Amino acid sequence: MQPSAPERGFPEAEFSARTAKAQDRMIQDGLAGLLLMTEPEVTYFTGFQTLFWQSPTRPWFLFVPAAGKPIAIIPEIGAELMHQTWLDDIRTWSAPCPKDDGISLLTDLLAPLAKAGDRIGVMKGHETQLRMPLGDWERLVVDLPGLHIADATRMVQHLRMVKSEAEIEKLAHICAIGSATFARVPDIVSEGMPLEDVFRAFRREALAQGADNAPYLVGTAAPGGYADVISPPSSRPLQAGDVMMLDTGCVWDGYFCDFDRNWAIGHVTDATRRAYDTLWRATEAGLEAAIPGNTCKNLFRAMSEVIAEIDPSGGDIGRLGHGLGLQLTEQPSHAAFDETVLEDGMVLTLEPSLSYGSGLMMVHEENIVVRKHGAELLTTRAPQSLIVI
Amino acid sequence: MQPSAPERGFPEAEFSARTAKAQDRMIQDGLAGLLLMTEPEVTYFTGFQTLFWQSPTRPWFLFVPAAGKPIAIIPEIGAELMHQTWLDDIRTWSAPCPKDDGISLLTDLLAPLAKAGDRIGVMKGHETQLRMPLGDWERLVVDLPGLHIADATRMVQHLRMVKSEAEIEKLAHICAIGSATFARVPDIVSEGMPLEDVFRAFRREALAQGADNAPYLVGTAAPGGYADVISPPSSRPLQAGDVMMLDTGCVWDGYFCDFDRNWAIGHVTDATRRAYDTLWRATEAGLEAAIPGNTCKNLFRAMSEVIAEIDPSGGDIGRLGHGLGLQLTEQPSHAAFDETVLEDGMVLTLEPSLSYGSGLMMVHEENIVVRKHGAELLTTRAPQSLIVI
Repeated sequence: MQPSAPERGFPEAEFSARTAKAQDRMIQDGLAGLLLMTEPEVTYFTGFQTLFWQSPTRPWFLFVPAAGKPIAIIPEIGAELMHQTWLDDIRTWSAPCPKDDGISLLTDLLAPLAKAGDRIGVMKGHETQLRMPLGDWERLVVDLPGLHIADATRMVQHLRMVKSEAEIEKLAHICAIGSATFARVPDIVSEGMPLEDVFRAFRREALAQGADNAPYLVGTAAPGGYADVISPPSSRPLQAGDVMMLDTGCVWDGYFCDFDRNWAIGHVTDATRRAYDTLWRATEAGLEAAIPGNTCKNLFRAMSEVIAEIDPSGGDIGRLGHGLGLQLTEQPSHAAFDETVLEDGMVLTLEPSLSYGSGLMMVHEENIVVRKHGAELLTTRAPQSLIVI
Repeated sequence: MQPSAPERGFPEAEFSARTAKAQDRMIQDGLAGLLLMTEPEVTYFTGFQTLFWQSPTRPWFLFVPAAGKPIAIIPEIGAELMHQTWLDDIRTWSAPCPKDDGISLLTDLLAPLAKAGDRIGVMKGHETQLRMPLGDWERLVVDLPGLHIADATRMVQHLRMVKSEAEIEKLAHICAIGSATFARVPDIVSEGMPLEDVFRAFRREALAQGADNAPYLVGTAAPGGYADVISPPSSRPLQAGDVMMLDTGCVWDGYFCDFDRNWAIGHVTDATRRAYDTLWRATEAGLEAAIPGNTCKNLFRAMSEVIAEIDPSGGDIGRLGHGLGLQLTEQPSHAAFDETVLEDGMVLTLEPSLSYGSGLMMVHEENIVVRKHGAELLTTRAPQSLIVI
């Protein structure tokens, strides 16, 4: 029984609206264009979707000019697929080509801007990577001495933070699939099952529930509680007294859910029950604080106050949630350093965590959309008491 | 019935041997150390494995000095897991921290080398990316004016190209799982099935056969033949007369297979049979040419000669195969530009492709290990004639 799926893809109007918003910002910031090269950004402005990004061999470039449609400079292998998007200007080369992997095409495109002494934006700030060889980047900068490079990280991240209704529909769909999958865990998992088989069973169930894939699945199971939340699974069989946590990023049509659930196997200690209850209430506090006008810092503080009942330090994850969309983790961060003001249409995770007992930790996570009147859950809320399998 | 699995992980001797080889090369190249920040390189020298790399939020750094064990500078969330590796020196910070995401820790580590005017290697060449914010990199370079940065791409790529017996065992295992999964396709796929459900069924089968996951799955099905090889699946049902191709990168203990298979649904044209036969024979030519001492260029030429019977241009994928290991695609490339000499222990894909008919293309792929006496298949060889489902 799969949750019924929305339509795949977006109408062209979605991409032209995104581009127009970016162009408004470019004009304000005095930018002649944006040079993008990472998967979520290329997908955001084009609708181009392929798992081929997993191959590190070839760079892909998208130039969003201050006016007009984006221009793709991509390996020839992607031409057929890129021609199915709303783009008209698609320039390709036979890649890989170590001597010139798109660099002369890129130089040709940018040369008139360099000559005019224009400024272009690239993403070089927090949470970004340069998805092309650093050596090629250095060569490009040297070959275009008149070109001014500005940091457009915040601008692009802010555009992507606020989701359209069509995006929210896709995010709601994958969160429903994730919730349906988690609901099945007590039926597909039992004492004695090696944790790596739990992972396989979970992924198979997520696919059966309609996920395109479950690329991200981490978790753990350990006697009395766990101490690490990013491990691959061991082959150790589940035992009575274990606390098990699974945290998944399932994907549908390019959009992610990102949330976790906890279970106890056989029986559970009072300390674990108390940690669970504290995190559940911290999430409630987060839900109440997730209203437009509040900041991520407010959200962080609201959850931290509850967590402090057990753990004044706030754990070692560095934040209590983040943005969600085309990436498993996006801006903003629910942390004391993040003053981002919450807006209608932001999709966020609430992810309180705490340390307890001797070296144990626990995490909780829900996915929400911020609406005018407050938070709406995209995930089926975790039960108020820890489920014992 | 799962292929029986080798042991997970590696003994410490594997990592110390890899490090010692890198250090030999560093001494030859006059390098005081290597600064690495990408998943396969960090995994290669430490054994650290986590899907947390999928979150773009935090950078991870590994410094391999010219003598001694590697030093990790990583987000606090990874400390517990990194302490399970052979490393002793693990320095952490509470990440994310936009103002200082590991940069001052990195600066402290490198300052003595900068003061001494030393050279360190980073990977900035072909097929690399800078997995940290470009702005932080620029800041690091400015803060350490005495430090000389050399390109260590070729050195690290060459180290990783030649696999140890323990690595080959893992690669053989995941290739066996991939082969067993492909063998089941005629049983789990039938006319009328939407292609996206074919993908789900394939992934579920790969998990059932023992894969940790099937992160990479692309493919297509189209009447009389296909024109694109990197698309996500449509929801169009399979029809009689379709040619279907699935290309998967399944993973086990961090190691990938990467190969594809073709099928016809119901019936098949002579042109498609001929294309299939040509690619099958091109692969045979590749298998014969894959001997130590030959170059990737030789391998490319051997396959191209057969492909030229139908397609003198050689298709638009840019190469006819590549290295395989901790990444779906690694160096070297079977292309006219790649003079890499084949060595005992290299694991490679043979991936001939061609264009035929009016705008159709076809791809074939096998995975091999180069041995002293020649190529050994890691995949179960594709049938000599196209299977009709």
